[in-house]
Amino acid sequence: MSLDNLYSDLTIKTGAKLALVVLDGLGDIATPEQRNMTPLEMADTPNLDKLVQSGCAQGRLTPVAPGITPGSGPGHLGLFGYDPIEYKVGRGVIEALGLGLTLKAGDVAARANFCTVNAKGIVTDRRAGRIPTKKCEELCALLSTKIKKIGDTQVIIEPGKEHRFVIIFRGKGMEGPVTDADPNREGLAIPTVKPIDSKSAKQKKTAKLIAEFYKKALPILKNEKPANAFLMRGIAHQPKIPTFEERYQLKAAAIAVYPMYKGLSQLVGMTKIEGPQTIAEQFDAFQKEYDNYDYFFIHYKNTDKAGEDGDFAAKVKAIEEFDQALPRLLAKKPDVLVITGDHSTPCSMASHSWHPQPVLIHSTCSGSDKLDRFTETGSNLGSLGVFDAKFLIRLMQANAKMFDKYGA
Amino acid sequence: MSLDNLYSDLTIKTGAKLALVVLDGLGDIATPEQRNMTPLEMADTPNLDKLVQSGCAQGRLTPVAPGITPGSGPGHLGLFGYDPIEYKVGRGVIEALGLGLTLKAGDVAARANFCTVNAKGIVTDRRAGRIPTKKCEELCALLSTKIKKIGDTQVIIEPGKEHRFVIIFRGKGMEGPVTDADPNREGLAIPTVKPIDSKSAKQKKTAKLIAEFYKKALPILKNEKPANAFLMRGIAHQPKIPTFEERYQLKAAAIAVYPMYKGLSQLVGMTKIEGPQTIAEQFDAFQKEYDNYDYFFIHYKNTDKAGEDGDFAAKVKAIEEFDQALPRLLAKKPDVLVITGDHSTPCSMASHSWHPQPVLIHSTCSGSDKLDRFTETGSNLGSLGVFDAKFLIRLMQANAKMFDKYGA
Repeated sequence: MSLDNLYSDLTIKTGAKLALVVLDGLGDIATPEQRNMTPLEMADTPNLDKLVQSGCAQGRLTPVAPGITPGSGPGHLGLFGYDPIEYKVGRGVIEALGLGLTLKAGDVAARANFCTVNAKGIVTDRRAGRIPTKKCEELCALLSTKIKKIGDTQVIIEPGKEHRFVIIFRGKGMEGPVTDADPNREGLAIPTVKPIDSKSAKQKKTAKLIAEFYKKALPILKNEKPANAFLMRGIAHQPKIPTFEERYQLKAAAIAVYPMYKGLSQLVGMTKIEGPQTIAEQFDAFQKEYDNYDYFFIHYKNTDKAGEDGDFAAKVKAIEEFDQALPRLLAKKPDVLVITGDHSTPCSMASHSWHPQPVLIHSTCSGSDKLDRFTETGSNLGSLGVFDAKFLIRLMQANAKMFDKYGA
Repeated sequence: MSLDNLYSDLTIKTGAKLALVVLDGLGDIATPEQRNMTPLEMADTPNLDKLVQSGCAQGRLTPVAPGITPGSGPGHLGLFGYDPIEYKVGRGVIEALGLGLTLKAGDVAARANFCTVNAKGIVTDRRAGRIPTKKCEELCALLSTKIKKIGDTQVIIEPGKEHRFVIIFRGKGMEGPVTDADPNREGLAIPTVKPIDSKSAKQKKTAKLIAEFYKKALPILKNEKPANAFLMRGIAHQPKIPTFEERYQLKAAAIAVYPMYKGLSQLVGMTKIEGPQTIAEQFDAFQKEYDNYDYFFIHYKNTDKAGEDGDFAAKVKAIEEFDQALPRLLAKKPDVLVITGDHSTPCSMASHSWHPQPVLIHSTCSGSDKLDRFTETGSNLGSLGVFDAKFLIRLMQANAKMFDKYGA
């Protein structure tokens, strides 16, 4: 029997309330430049400290496998209990879901950017000067009007924010992933899309279709300024994923602000709670929806944004903003509360990293590791050790007493 | 090559003496109700402290997988180095072995209780008022005399303590597991046994046979008081398990008081040492048998009993009783000594749990983690980290210098 099947067999519904707060990119590393402190260590977090001192188990999460730096997709799938090596989700799929589009089996989706190319077709600005969202909407409407189908395949074009949009190809016999139509830097031409698996007829068809799409679409944009072309990446189809409720018997809600995280949560069948823009508003929404769901995924982006910008002070401030809002979450006393990141984004690296992120679990049966704070160094001393992120949901279920005893 | 095969290939006999002391349900969690202390932290353990200070490696064991709470069977199989997900053993099998019965391939065994039912067949007392052992023996003899066979299948009925007994069906074409003939609480009728795997013809035959057995047996008990019926659970056949000696080249002895643990150790081919009733007597037996075996499994039940009762003071006392006896074990200076639990049984939960149990290894090459005591919080800091229980035996073998170097 697989371990997942064993967990399923042991699962019982309890009506317990579980909350996962993801401070995106939370984990960091101590460097001499920052007085050997991490943002979590530097931040003033009276509410978090009080929570820790009331009794928490701590540890560190390996997002995918030792040394692997995850994107947001694998990072979150792991936290949701889906092995990120087994379940692969293309960025296009996530963006499409995030925009509220419903994907059908066999759809291939791509994330697209309007860009600027010169007369020779060389990309001179990958974001076309970050055109306003309104302009993006106009250009998408233009493309949609002129290209409805390629052969038998329907083409769906949906604008996002600024230069971003999503393209969905709805037809038969296609699958992802294929290579990006994006040089990933300026000064190069838009590369031709190729199958990743050269033996896949479906990937070949997808690549061919995208080439035809470019052939039709580029002339339409030719005279636009500055967005006279576009790039496509993360071209993939929606994989088969059992829903959160099927897998864990938990009715789940997602309280996220950014499309990507809404998309990721929808991929596993969570319900989007729309509206809140700040972490305080997100916690208020949590309070309001508390009786309607068993599991809440609450996503906070500011920590990652600061980390990506290499802005230590901003990351400290983002953590403090979260801490100030925390009592709104705690007011409901969820049965199981987890606070962690989806990966580390060390300020000194200004990028995602592989360093295991700290994690804390608080419940009436989490026990106490007798730590005073929630930090990287502190969590090294916790009872949870360093473990794979995909097991986090299992510990949450255990703390919610959702598992029968295994064997006599 | 599988990892088990690699270990086998590297194994060399050294004549070293290895001892595993299992303080059942040892692990616990700190809660505000108990001044944020665990029983191990609260107990006065001068002998254990001295052992730790003389040099031990510490860590924590995940009994099965993150979040999974094991019964005693999976808990011990893990400590013995058998993956508890791969090797499943029904309670009936363990109880039968514990009573000294020898199971043959194909036998199906069940743990049974005499119980009381009312005129409508509703279970009013699952333990028939805990009838004396003598009464249990009489009733088993009565059933044995009247039911020797059902069709071609031999029925073996063996009394245990108080209301407990074991039934073995010896015939062809049967296998477990099947569902329990036990409502698991009072106020319900005895349920009919069903196959767990509806496609298994062997499980179907087992279920049918048990239905016939009930049909014959219940009328025999009808006029008895208060034990006028019986329940069956953990109905299973003996799985194929390589013996301890085959697997580890260790001649092993079990010094346990309770049938279940004797049964578990016999399942993997250990020899039962009968007689001792207290932990001091068990350690005396260890001294006496020291030259006759390479590996000793010493099982102490009182810690788990106290935990199950939610009796913090009793668990502290059980640990102190063990500590007082410890010098009798240490007198022999076994080459490798491990002290751990088979799982945690937190007093605040009054049940088994999934929390990793603390473990210590003492040998001339265990190294020292420079800890002063053996506690949950302390073991978090140890060099062994949090690891799967099934690897414990491998660390014991390594400390006994039983492994050749792997590769040049």
